Amino acid sequence: MNYAPELVVQEWLNTKEELTLKSLRGRVVLIEAFQMLCPGCVAHALPQAQEVATTFPNDKVVVLGLHTVFEHHEAQGSRVALAAFLHEYRLTFPVAIDAPSTGGTPIPQTMAAYEMRGTPTTILIDKSGTLRMNKFGRERDMVLGARIASLLLGPETTGEGKQACDADGCLID
Amino acid sequence: MNYAPELVVQEWLNTKEELTLKSLRGRVVLIEAFQMLCPGCVAHALPQAQEVATTFPNDKVVVLGLHTVFEHHEAQGSRVALAAFLHEYRLTFPVAIDAPSTGGTPIPQTMAAYEMRGTPTTILIDKSGTLRMNKFGRERDMVLGARIASLLLGPETTGEGKQACDADGCLID
Amino acid sequence: MNYAPELVVQEWLNTKEELTLKSLRGRVVLIEAFQMLCPGCVAHALPQAQEVATTFPNDKVVVLGLHTVFEHHEAQGSRVALAAFLHEYRLTFPVAIDAPSTGGTPIPQTMAAYEMRGTPTTILIDKSGTLRMNKFGRERDMVLGARIASLLLGPETTGEGKQACDADGCLID
Amino acid sequence: MNYAPELVVQEWLNTKEELTLKSLRGRVVLIEAFQMLCPGCVAHALPQAQEVATTFPNDKVVVLGLHTVFEHHEAQGSRVALAAFLHEYRLTFPVAIDAPSTGGTPIPQTMAAYEMRGTPTTILIDKSGTLRMNKFGRERDMVLGARIASLLLGPETTGEGKQACDADGCLID
Repeated sequence: MNYAPELVVQEWLNTKEELTLKSLRGRVVLIEAFQMLCPGCVAHALPQAQEVATTFPNDKVVVLGLHTVFEHHEAQGSRVALAAFLHEYRLTFPVAIDAPSTGGTPIPQTMAAYEMRGTPTTILIDKSGTLRMNKFGRERDMVLGARIASLLLGPETTGEGKQACDADGCLID
Repeated sequence: MNYAPELVVQEWLNTKEELTLKSLRGRVVLIEAFQMLCPGCVAHALPQAQEVATTFPNDKVVVLGLHTVFEHHEAQGSRVALAAFLHEYRLTFPVAIDAPSTGGTPIPQTMAAYEMRGTPTTILIDKSGTLRMNKFGRERDMVLGARIASLLLGPETTGEGKQACDADGCLID
Repeated sequence: MNYAPELVVQEWLNTKEELTLKSLRGRVVLIEAFQMLCPGCVAHALPQAQEVATTFPNDKVVVLGLHTVFEHHEAQGSRVALAAFLHEYRLTFPVAIDAPSTGGTPIPQTMAAYEMRGTPTTILIDKSGTLRMNKFGRERDMVLGARIASLLLGPETTGEGKQACDADGCLID
Repeated sequence: MNYAPELVVQEWLNTKEELTLKSLRGRVVLIEAFQMLCPGCVAHALPQAQEVATTFPNDKVVVLGLHTVFEHHEAQGSRVALAAFLHEYRLTFPVAIDAPSTGGTPIPQTMAAYEMRGTPTTILIDKSGTLRMNKFGRERDMVLGARIASLLLGPETTGEGKQACDADGCLID
């Protein structure tokens, strides 16, 4: 098996229960990795993630935020600041604070597991738990909408780890 | 059978061969009905249609423009003006000039057959030839991308006329 | 004396009286030279000119459109098409159709007199009738607002032809 | 005399020297009051203030930021977070942290002195030190450019306190 790496979470906001990718099998999962002081995240990626959350039915597509602080830790690290940020920007989906590295690097654990290049990074995981998109930077709304629909309606993968899509190539299989 | 109404065309631009919906069976077809002096068409609908044409592979999704002049006929009616418009706006997909009414109304024939309310109107027809979306006004990129992908990947319809989707309701069946 | 070149007009729209630059002395004049099939004119320059017309009092700042057809003459040349265009785009300021060349060139007469490079071109003339800005392409709203205010409130020129400003240099004298 | 209220500042960023309105007499001053977690400030007001700073010569127009935290104090209050924010958003003008209230209210001192209604608030002070604009919310670029130019080029005020302009009324005196 070769599932998408599980989230390693310090703390959750906007949700009463702790979530795991495993518990979300059967649904398409979009993970928006961001930092609250990242301009591209604030201007584009987070509003786009919120639009996904309101466009697709929640029992079929789950949107999760992942606060991956890899710079300005002191400035962005507090839970209270993140909670105020989510409130002011009207972001309503569950947000996980990525667990800090235990190895002395500035890169938190989930960010490292997905080998992200920075923020924003948009990740799509299919219903079987397989990673299908892992893209740094900006994705067009039309393409993201098509990718999500193709995961909703396309053939089931086996969960056996065919990483079918790279960042730019899996729109229409 | 209950196929989407066939196009009734006075003349084609941006294509060497005359196209029919029947000849496009097996592909998803997007028809963008517009007028060259309609601000919402120019600012949003036509650039969006062009984005569809460049995002999806042409052997799976066909984009057609339909110039449906129902007002300012003298101003918008000439082929030469439309050709200049398509050139200046870098619109490269085939465009049909809707055939004028033979019954004395200002509404051209294809526009009447689809009971369009105005321009822009965005129409989606599935691979079997069945009408699946017929929407007046602006559609969000994310939703349109998802609708097209769902027609590409969703179950085949029989062509027996299940008008499965109204303007707002068929995103995820 | 070295006044800005007078307009050479084939026909006016959106005004009952024929206008001349000479008759507008004492007011700042903005001339927006455009073609109805020029995308940059439609998307940016004409809405900006309309914003000038509604932002500044009309007895102090006059906005004029100038339809300078130098390409696609057959497509853009008719008065009826231009009238429909102005109606659909809600452009309410007076618009002059630039007089065609009498010398066999495609460049109409006023466009030639101002040595315009294309469309859109934005021209500012001060209260004394002197040309103060003649810019091809896009100008930012903040800069245009500042230029107009500086002509409204700055020292009078003598009309003796000090062409004080080039396209980019006269914001603050 | 009735000068604009002096800034009451806890700490400055983006400047080596502490600034006062009194020391800036002779220049037009724009003050952008903001909070780093205020969406309208981030999306519109701060980029607009930065555009003012790069459009007008600094020896004639001075742009200052004023971080007026009146909500989410714990989230927005730290100097290190504000410094990271200014760095990430490429804001280069001097920014003052408004001094907290000494009277037990959440409203900091400068914000109270100007009777601001919230953030963003854009303030203009003329060369004589007189308050000329104090506007809550969004101002159009064209209007702000015109207001600044009119203060640069308009008649000097005496500093005797003619509050000539309300929020919407002083564009052209």
